[in-house]
Parts: sequence; structure tokens; C-alpha cells
Amino acid sequence: MSNLYDSAYDLEKAIRESNEYKELKSLFDQVNSDPSAKGMFENFRNLQMNLQQKQMTGQEITPEEVEQAQKTVALVQQHSTISKLMEAEQRMSMAIADLNKIIMKPLEDLYGSPQQ
Amino acid sequence: MSNLYDSAYDLEKAIRESNEYKELKSLFDQVNSDPSAKGMFENFRNLQMNLQQKQMTGQEITPEEVEQAQKTVALVQQHSTISKLMEAEQRMSMAIADLNKIIMKPLEDLYGSPQQ
Repeated sequence: MSNLYDSAYDLEKAIRESNEYKELKSLFDQVNSDPSAKGMFENFRNLQMNLQQKQMTGQEITPEEVEQAQKTVALVQQHSTISKLMEAEQRMSMAIADLNKIIMKPLEDLYGSPQQ
Repeated sequence: MSNLYDSAYDLEKAIRESNEYKELKSLFDQVNSDPSAKGMFENFRNLQMNLQQKQMTGQEITPEEVEQAQKTVALVQQHSTISKLMEAEQRMSMAIADLNKIIMKPLEDLYGSPQQ
């Protein structure tokens, strides 16, 4: 068990030291230290979360909301630091997905393929 | 990046070599090599997944379904290998949750607490 935790802490450290994380953190800090960029990004995040929640709970999304979302996306994409941050987030989340696939392999070996 | 993957593979190996996983695998193999236990367990799993899916999609669960579920749970709990397997699954899933908490700490440091 202790080896399990040791290995997890090693991976945590490797994530912190990875280029993906360093870039993400640097861009995140840049955006958050600029009040106008921060506000724009938070606005975008809230809108996104709001729409996702509606989608998951089967609530209707109005044409006005779609339009507002498109406008907000277009706006944040024009902001170069925010758009770099969003790309860094995507790279980080792809790396995390890769890591999860590796780590979950032992359980997938048991439960994954029904024909086993 | 390569260090990230190396660390993930180390963790995968540590999971495979952990007592939690060894016990889980041994009980899983025991249940699956006994056709009657296997059938009982699969029946229970299907019922459980079916009810979870209904719950998630907001479908109504009938009193008959609740009763059938309770009967099936009572039945599998009386089977000592299956009930040991279910306990081992719970221990494994608690360990995985702990590992995930550790690994996700770097991202939580960025996104976790809004007052940062």
C-alpha cells in the first residue's frame, strides 16, 4: 500500500514538473493577474458551466443562449493569452486522460473485456 | 513528458502489485471460475447498472424493481466469495479515489479554490 502512495506522489511530482503543467500554470497566472482578462475568462467559464449543466439535466438551451455563447467564445479566442491558456488546458487534459488510461489498465484487464 | 509516462507506468505496476489488486483479482477469478457464482454476480451487476442508468436519466424505478434489487443484494451477500469480492472492490475503489486525489492536486491548486 505504501508503495502505491509513493508511486502516486511521484506521479504528482512529475505532473507538476511537466512542461504541460508549467505552461498551464504560467498562462493561468498571466490571465489571473490581468483583471480584464480574468473577468473575460471567468465570464466564459461560467457561461460554459451553465450550458453544460443545462445539457446534462436535459434543460432547454435557448437560441439567445447559443448566440451569447458563440459571441463569448469568439471574444475569448481573440484574446491571445486566454486562447493560449485554453490550448494549454486542452493539452493538459489530454495528458491526464493518457495517464488515466495507463493507470486504469489493471482494472480494465479485469472488467474491461466481457469475453475474458 | 516522458517522465510523466514513466511515472504513470510505475504507478500502474504498483497498483498491479498492491494487496488490494491481488486480492481483488484472486476473488474475481474465483467467482468467475464458478458458473453458478458467476451467473449470480453478473445478474446482480446488470440489475445494478440498469437501476443506475434509470436514476441518471431520471426514469422512474418501480416498487417491483426495488424489491427485486433488494432480493438480489440479499442473495449475493449470502454468497461468501461474492461478498468478499464486493468488499475487495470497495477497498480497491477507495484506493483509486485516494490516488486520484493525490494526482489531481496540481490541478486543484490552480482551479480548486476560487479565493486563490
